[in-house]
Amino acid sequence: MIKIENKAALGAVSENDINALRSVAETAARTLADGDGAGNDFLGWLHLPSSIDEAQLSAIELCAARLRQDCEFVVAVGIGGSYLGAKAVIEALSDQFAAYKQSSGARVLFAGNNIGEDYLHDLMSLLKGHKWGIIVISKSGTTTEPAIAFRLLKGQLEHELGREWASRHIVAITDAARGALRGLATQEGYETFVIPDNVGGRFSVLTPVGLLPIAVAGFDIRALVAGAVEMEQGSDEPMLCYAQTRNALYRAGKKVEILVNFEPRLHFLAEWWKQLYGESEGKDGKGIFPASVDFTTDLHSMGQWIQDGERTIFETVLTVERQHHEVVIPHDEADLDGLNYIAGCRLGEVNHKAELGTRLAHVDGGVPNVVITLPTIDERTLGQLVYFFEKACGISGYMLGVNPFNQPGVEAYKKNMFALLGKSGYEAQTAALEARL
Amino acid sequence: MIKIENKAALGAVSENDINALRSVAETAARTLADGDGAGNDFLGWLHLPSSIDEAQLSAIELCAARLRQDCEFVVAVGIGGSYLGAKAVIEALSDQFAAYKQSSGARVLFAGNNIGEDYLHDLMSLLKGHKWGIIVISKSGTTTEPAIAFRLLKGQLEHELGREWASRHIVAITDAARGALRGLATQEGYETFVIPDNVGGRFSVLTPVGLLPIAVAGFDIRALVAGAVEMEQGSDEPMLCYAQTRNALYRAGKKVEILVNFEPRLHFLAEWWKQLYGESEGKDGKGIFPASVDFTTDLHSMGQWIQDGERTIFETVLTVERQHHEVVIPHDEADLDGLNYIAGCRLGEVNHKAELGTRLAHVDGGVPNVVITLPTIDERTLGQLVYFFEKACGISGYMLGVNPFNQPGVEAYKKNMFALLGKSGYEAQTAALEARL
Repeated sequence: MIKIENKAALGAVSENDINALRSVAETAARTLADGDGAGNDFLGWLHLPSSIDEAQLSAIELCAARLRQDCEFVVAVGIGGSYLGAKAVIEALSDQFAAYKQSSGARVLFAGNNIGEDYLHDLMSLLKGHKWGIIVISKSGTTTEPAIAFRLLKGQLEHELGREWASRHIVAITDAARGALRGLATQEGYETFVIPDNVGGRFSVLTPVGLLPIAVAGFDIRALVAGAVEMEQGSDEPMLCYAQTRNALYRAGKKVEILVNFEPRLHFLAEWWKQLYGESEGKDGKGIFPASVDFTTDLHSMGQWIQDGERTIFETVLTVERQHHEVVIPHDEADLDGLNYIAGCRLGEVNHKAELGTRLAHVDGGVPNVVITLPTIDERTLGQLVYFFEKACGISGYMLGVNPFNQPGVEAYKKNMFALLGKSGYEAQTAALEARL
Repeated sequence: MIKIENKAALGAVSENDINALRSVAETAARTLADGDGAGNDFLGWLHLPSSIDEAQLSAIELCAARLRQDCEFVVAVGIGGSYLGAKAVIEALSDQFAAYKQSSGARVLFAGNNIGEDYLHDLMSLLKGHKWGIIVISKSGTTTEPAIAFRLLKGQLEHELGREWASRHIVAITDAARGALRGLATQEGYETFVIPDNVGGRFSVLTPVGLLPIAVAGFDIRALVAGAVEMEQGSDEPMLCYAQTRNALYRAGKKVEILVNFEPRLHFLAEWWKQLYGESEGKDGKGIFPASVDFTTDLHSMGQWIQDGERTIFETVLTVERQHHEVVIPHDEADLDGLNYIAGCRLGEVNHKAELGTRLAHVDGGVPNVVITLPTIDERTLGQLVYFFEKACGISGYMLGVNPFNQPGVEAYKKNMFALLGKSGYEAQTAALEARL
């Protein structure tokens, strides 16, 4: 099981400071469990792992196997939580140079998470001449970014491989009954999966939103869910510890939390985490600013700032005990590079010493740290980690006094964008905004 | 030419606040030009663009053409500034799905910038059976991360393709005369290029450190340098404007600067910028915390925090006027997704409206912004941008009262790591650290 340890956070805050938040944390956890807090219509994720039944998993696996076998590429079209969860898990589990290697099944690519014109051009030019399919993920079917990408990709797919191929190789993940995408799926005969009403995007990785792309990429979604179930049915202690510690640090003036990894494959896990915590807590003029670094790479970049800049940060370090592959540093007779003192060591050992050395150096530099240990990176530990971070986020948000399950601030840019694009219904705003530009 | 605009920063600070820093900024710029400030033995980058001569450019191009033609992959081994500059420029100029497409020449990959055991395993397994080469970048040849990767990759290359192939397809970029790598290169007959003594890693992209990998990837280094020369020989106004504005904002309590792009291909430009500013300014307990986001992707992630979280941030937005490829939103008879109001628009136009809408929304939410406009993304504009950010960084660091050209904090983790790895000379520390663990 994954473990959490907050000893190296002491100093910036005392054990008393952390313990003083115990009752607040327990109240928050109870509010979550009882479902009587703010945003309580979005608590479906809380018992999601244990409530996914055999029929759902089989249906996802069956659909994934078909896409994986028929297609060279499957484009997952979605934004925010309909992108980051699957991306994080797939990247964490994949060969890091997979793009350059032969693949035994479909490769999962992502679109609809930006409006980059060159990005979509480059993707569409790649797909020409290949067999491919689409997983389109949108509750409404009208969210601008995925809707644009899907309109274009659907057109290309139907044009190149025919409407029949398209209808069999487009899968829609959408609302159970309503919305544009549900309507289209019914009309075209797409296979569909449901986004539950009571699960927000950033908590959706264990719904078909995350599970289908992960399964298409060839990974074991049963193990992922099983890991999450272990965390769901285990003690709340780890989540309480994380929520109490980070809130104590925040109250003590630590305004930025940096999620640290020493495994390049965890890069997008940090991006997922930033969405989870940033979108849940960054409201009402408060919230820890979530940032991330990939070490040791970024020790030669942000490392200087972390060691010696403003003392307003803390780190949460993801440490991984066991790597998948063994690479040993060879002995070299000449030893010009002076590395013979570690000849015979595995890279993982050296990396681990670099991690220990870094953690001590940062604590000495006034940067408290929290350590989360993963026995290894696989579906099961990632399932545990996902649920751990989700539940701790719910607790932490309630402790902060915000509704962790809404995202009112995300509407602001959309309204302006609609007005500037001349969408009907926004005429008054259009004039006002254009006058300012 | 690239342009800078700070109007949308007013409000959080007044024009007077910014103008009040004019003389400080001018003094900083003069200190830089006169070379009489802190770190003045590392000012070689200041006149680097205009001082690169024809012979140097030709030699780099010739070497690059050979590697590009002979090899399927070239692994650039380096960390920090010996990694990020080339990575940033190559990613910004490349097809974003290039990894999945045929290539007309060698593909540039990166190693030695981390100690990930699985990362190096996955890379080494990719290289098997291919024709490949190495660009190894290290002043001393003993920096841990690149030294480990190079020892392993050199061994593999010699084993698989023979020592003669290896000696012709390993290129060393290192000190002119001293160090382990210089010694090895002489002994093995590697082609070499020099890292100038007076250019620090994070300012080295316009030396062979950046230029050779960029040329191997197939890009026009003459245009890159020409762009930088335009900025070097132009007015200091844009750099003074950026340095004054960001320092005024910092003094007014804006502690985090978020570099924003709306083009996914600029992701690593932001990573390079984070190193440049984080490592130059994050010292003596001060410095703006540099962060970055990729929009519109991250509007559905960090967007909530930016709109509504603590009001201690500002944004610097990279805006790009012209995309390379045209993708037009098609008309759709049924219009279920409701996008027909923008049918006929290019994606770039929609993206630009999203950007304008976002900037206004964030200003309204209390997040000032600075806008840097690139006419397009090509070698010339990237050359301008690189020099712009470098010079503005030197000025800004002096305004902050730090030495922008050292990085004392990067040593702390290294010392601990050596001690924990049992390197000779660190025995006393080893015992002390192990006692703490």
